[in-house]
Amino acid sequence: MSENVNSSHGAGTGQSIEQKRRQNLGRMFNPKSIAVVGASQDPAKAGSQALSTLAKFPGKVFGVHPRETEIRGVACYPSFLDLPEPVDLAVLAIPARACVQAAADAAARGVGGIFIVSGGFGETGEDGAKLEQELAAICQETGLRLLGPNTSGFVRPSAGCIASFVPGVDTIAAGNIAVLAQSGGVNLSIGYLLDSLGDGVSLATGLGNAADIDAGDMLDLLGDDDDTAAIALHLEGVTEGRALYDTLAKITLRKPVVAVVAGRSDIGEFAVSHTGNLMGSRDRTVAALEQAGAVVVDTLDDLAQAASVLSRRRLPPKQNSAMALITGQAGPGLLITDALKTAGVAFPELTGDTQNTIAGLLPPMTFTKNPIDTGRPGPGFPDIVRAAAEDAAIDAILVFGISEPSVLDPAKALSPAYEATGKPVLFGTLGPASDLEKTFDDLKDSRTPMLLGPDRLALAGAVLDTDARHQWLLSHRTVQPAQATTQALSGPFDEDAAKQVMRSYGIATPRSALCENREEVERAFADLSKPVVVKIAATDVAHKTEVGGVILNVTDDAQLAEALDQIDRIPTATPGRVLIEEMAPQGVDLIVGGVRDPSWGPVVVVGLGGVLAEAVSDSAVALAPLSDTDVDHMLGSLRGKQMLDGFRGLPRCDRAAIAAAAIAVGKMLEEHPEIAEVEINPLRVNESGAVALDSLIVLGK
Amino acid sequence: MSENVNSSHGAGTGQSIEQKRRQNLGRMFNPKSIAVVGASQDPAKAGSQALSTLAKFPGKVFGVHPRETEIRGVACYPSFLDLPEPVDLAVLAIPARACVQAAADAAARGVGGIFIVSGGFGETGEDGAKLEQELAAICQETGLRLLGPNTSGFVRPSAGCIASFVPGVDTIAAGNIAVLAQSGGVNLSIGYLLDSLGDGVSLATGLGNAADIDAGDMLDLLGDDDDTAAIALHLEGVTEGRALYDTLAKITLRKPVVAVVAGRSDIGEFAVSHTGNLMGSRDRTVAALEQAGAVVVDTLDDLAQAASVLSRRRLPPKQNSAMALITGQAGPGLLITDALKTAGVAFPELTGDTQNTIAGLLPPMTFTKNPIDTGRPGPGFPDIVRAAAEDAAIDAILVFGISEPSVLDPAKALSPAYEATGKPVLFGTLGPASDLEKTFDDLKDSRTPMLLGPDRLALAGAVLDTDARHQWLLSHRTVQPAQATTQALSGPFDEDAAKQVMRSYGIATPRSALCENREEVERAFADLSKPVVVKIAATDVAHKTEVGGVILNVTDDAQLAEALDQIDRIPTATPGRVLIEEMAPQGVDLIVGGVRDPSWGPVVVVGLGGVLAEAVSDSAVALAPLSDTDVDHMLGSLRGKQMLDGFRGLPRCDRAAIAAAAIAVGKMLEEHPEIAEVEINPLRVNESGAVALDSLIVLGK
Repeated sequence: MSENVNSSHGAGTGQSIEQKRRQNLGRMFNPKSIAVVGASQDPAKAGSQALSTLAKFPGKVFGVHPRETEIRGVACYPSFLDLPEPVDLAVLAIPARACVQAAADAAARGVGGIFIVSGGFGETGEDGAKLEQELAAICQETGLRLLGPNTSGFVRPSAGCIASFVPGVDTIAAGNIAVLAQSGGVNLSIGYLLDSLGDGVSLATGLGNAADIDAGDMLDLLGDDDDTAAIALHLEGVTEGRALYDTLAKITLRKPVVAVVAGRSDIGEFAVSHTGNLMGSRDRTVAALEQAGAVVVDTLDDLAQAASVLSRRRLPPKQNSAMALITGQAGPGLLITDALKTAGVAFPELTGDTQNTIAGLLPPMTFTKNPIDTGRPGPGFPDIVRAAAEDAAIDAILVFGISEPSVLDPAKALSPAYEATGKPVLFGTLGPASDLEKTFDDLKDSRTPMLLGPDRLALAGAVLDTDARHQWLLSHRTVQPAQATTQALSGPFDEDAAKQVMRSYGIATPRSALCENREEVERAFADLSKPVVVKIAATDVAHKTEVGGVILNVTDDAQLAEALDQIDRIPTATPGRVLIEEMAPQGVDLIVGGVRDPSWGPVVVVGLGGVLAEAVSDSAVALAPLSDTDVDHMLGSLRGKQMLDGFRGLPRCDRAAIAAAAIAVGKMLEEHPEIAEVEINPLRVNESGAVALDSLIVLGK
Repeated sequence: MSENVNSSHGAGTGQSIEQKRRQNLGRMFNPKSIAVVGASQDPAKAGSQALSTLAKFPGKVFGVHPRETEIRGVACYPSFLDLPEPVDLAVLAIPARACVQAAADAAARGVGGIFIVSGGFGETGEDGAKLEQELAAICQETGLRLLGPNTSGFVRPSAGCIASFVPGVDTIAAGNIAVLAQSGGVNLSIGYLLDSLGDGVSLATGLGNAADIDAGDMLDLLGDDDDTAAIALHLEGVTEGRALYDTLAKITLRKPVVAVVAGRSDIGEFAVSHTGNLMGSRDRTVAALEQAGAVVVDTLDDLAQAASVLSRRRLPPKQNSAMALITGQAGPGLLITDALKTAGVAFPELTGDTQNTIAGLLPPMTFTKNPIDTGRPGPGFPDIVRAAAEDAAIDAILVFGISEPSVLDPAKALSPAYEATGKPVLFGTLGPASDLEKTFDDLKDSRTPMLLGPDRLALAGAVLDTDARHQWLLSHRTVQPAQATTQALSGPFDEDAAKQVMRSYGIATPRSALCENREEVERAFADLSKPVVVKIAATDVAHKTEVGGVILNVTDDAQLAEALDQIDRIPTATPGRVLIEEMAPQGVDLIVGGVRDPSWGPVVVVGLGGVLAEAVSDSAVALAPLSDTDVDHMLGSLRGKQMLDGFRGLPRCDRAAIAAAAIAVGKMLEEHPEIAEVEINPLRVNESGAVALDSLIVLGK
């Protein structure tokens, strides 16, 4: 069937399939005509709901029904092929088994895109997965686009297009935040949350099983969508990670993107039942999104709130943005300060000049360093906000005041500071509902973000800072291009062979010698600085330490002989082969590793070494290629990061050397597609550099 | 002056001051008559606001003003002493310097309690602190109670008493959640947040500087307040910690208490400026509140939401409560499941019978293990909820469904399950505002908690679980009473003396001998199992390892002689004194320590040993006396807890032995008030017990 479709369409128009796919994507999300397949009179059915929610659609609506010629005033036709025109969008509210034929018909009729409400595809097992693959093949071959299956659709309020089967969705207001969710239910949830914050959506889409249209396609569309000022993204698992990264990295410096990624805990079995996909590693997904410039939060509440704030105000790229807080009440001010500091936001003391100006506007004994605690808002409040905003060291101003209209008019107190400096000025408040509504209206014209309560104001500050930092990291990434390598590596790698590769990538290793017999060992021993470590060198011995194959602190000939005797007792196919190596200097042990992720490609992990670090999962991950700033950011995210800075008598670690090793591991994976996994464990680091004490390379199949 | 007051009142009535203080506390928070001191015509002044907000007060209101006889219809008198009756409550909206005289007058006139709006006391420095001490002294001597100074007051909607100077506070509805906040501004914030959730307050109090009435006083009052079903608590610092613990522990099994504690980051200087108090250790405050049965959350949003849920539904005491989730949409269901599992909530597979029943109510291929993903709510929904509730392994049911009135009527879907089983059934939803209002009204009679969105539903589930666990821990605490000891310890303690104390408390130490000369060492060496460790024993050597005073792995006479030679080279006032000790078995190293906190008394810390554990602050703290269950809970809260369970070839740790050591450390502190600090570092633990390898006792001044 799909060959059929292919031969009758898509060719001969002078347009490539890729161009057609892109064009059809635009058609379906800005439709001028829509068909509902499975149109129904029964209000409990999705096909009926679809008609209801499309009632206000300003374009043409048609029905497709095997028998009826009209349903609720909508003209119906027996099949796609009978439609009077090739609609931009078709809604398929029919069982899974009927969808493949319908998709073929839609493609044949020149429909732009379809969206399939029904489940019963990949998420239910093999038979469903086969149907889904057939749909995907039709799309690839014909240029027809498919949203879903297994989704509640999308909402495009500005176009009057409510392509969703859930009643009430039409109450979500038009606005400038795009929602892009892997799940239809989450798409609606975010839409309603934005609505409750007084924001609206430009386009809200639930991807469902994403047989054709995936997050990358939609981000590409939204990046160029003039109605969209910020994007709220929800992901469960990502199958084409590298493409998503590339798309996102092109957008985030222009438009803020906030994301929630499911999978903080192990929810694998239910997740598979839901979308038919494995979720992959959440850590890698989060790291990739952040590297691409997105802000990742943990909850939908935070997602909606963060998107709301970023759609209104944004800081320019900066590694650490400094905030000032002006509070009308000390107690909430303390909680906001606490939350911002906990989130790592810079909260510097105001300059002396600013403090003097502010002190002149407040009663004596009030706290003016930062936060500025006004005790209770007074007539000087607007000037205080402005003075703080004019402090050159401050990037954004947070203001909190419980509603007290007689002493604080937020619009008048905040706008002058923003207008004079262009710096974001955010307002946090609480009070009687009627006061809050009035304040929201008063702040509407200036688009000043209004946050309900201390926690949300602090969240907003942290989000502005994180967004600015991720922009900065993205725009400061200077990565060395990978070299096209001519020669593939061949394994298996014993420790010495792995270390040779490390050295070829500029990673220091201890001076050593690989010896085949005692005579060679004795010669090497004479040459090396003592003490040395003597290790069995055998590819058939996996756990050298456990079998007694690693002898440390060998300083004299007697100890050397004893060590070699001990190694000789370990059974191996290559008896007598040992690696003799200078003992490493004191330092802090790290792990630097890399793997090739099926979705994200080469990823690098940096963590503290040792069993406890493993038990508390103290590591950071990022996509290769890495820049120095990436590695610095990774190290800064480690819980035990103070271990690197001379903690408890440990040496101060050479971060540049750690960065060089991590960058090199990423490069190895990029340049050698045959490598599946690399691990340096430990990487011994002190003030004068980093040395790979042991390393491992595993080739892929 | 205060002597004056004391001589004229409080004596001769047959009532103790303590009784009078308690009675006056009740009077002031359920007042029948109120006086406003500093009553004013100027609407920007607190004295004017106080009159406005008291306008609806059903009892008598008087003004105190030096010149006016009437302000806005309220009769005014020149001073307290001229009032026609001893009012239950007086609001002091006058400058700090005038408050001491006013308090003395109020006491003389038999007023129940006063509340002082003004700042200018302890938070501003020494002079203010002196005023505050004078106020406290008047209260102690006369029985007059004082709320504040430096607070916005309190709200008692059911009594029509809005004793607060902030306009709009009178919109906060009457309800059954008490708010108790250290800060007046936070008190109002929580009140407004509860109001926005559709809940109201029974009594909302901001303590301010707490010169007299503190959190313990208020909790005592609220514990017996019939209008109060749950308590939302906000603390910054606690000065009388042990008393607060005792009060709280008497309440929490009857009434749920949720708390926020400021100070996650270092906000010391601003905090002092705010309340005049040092905040103390937040970790200890949180631990104490949790031990006393409270639920501690991080934000005011969570505080309000948790109090709302717990005021409606509560689980009985249980260590791990099991939850089931029934969701109308898979995507939000995944996020809820993820959040619950991340929070450590038990989320077991439903029993086979339950799954069968539910499978019969759903289309094939839906996920029924837990969560139950209905795809979209259908007619079987109420029966599914009920079947899950009837599963004996399940303690509470969470239901999520985006508003779809045509297929899901929440009241009908949820109530039968709750009525049949008595188990909490919580409803999470999102949708158009009008739908949500209707649903809220529909659920009002059954008091079913309604949570807006997946995150809050998950929070509610986690809070129910935590509340049940803390109740369980509190009701399962069996602690050994401390013995009255006759003999105080005298120090300083060298390692051997400290270990003797450890042994007297049942804590194992390595077999050892304290030797004064080589002859004694050699005799001991012959007796002990080899290898041994040889350590310098000198109270004037603080860092034994650093000076080369600890020699490990001594197995033969030659090594012993070498070790003793090395120790002989270390300068000390007690040359030749060494501790010789059997080497410890392999195991996992922990730290068990104890200190005497000025507010909380003896507290015990348990953590993993080593530098990294210190760098990531992986330790848990609790008040002594400890029970086994406390220590188990502490160990379970360690990030690296898998280190205790045979991680990566480490031995499985004997938790009972760890518990015994931690309990003993607490007991030492309780029985020996002269001890300031105890530390066992490391406590070496393996499958067969725990041994204190080194220990330290520091006596107080």
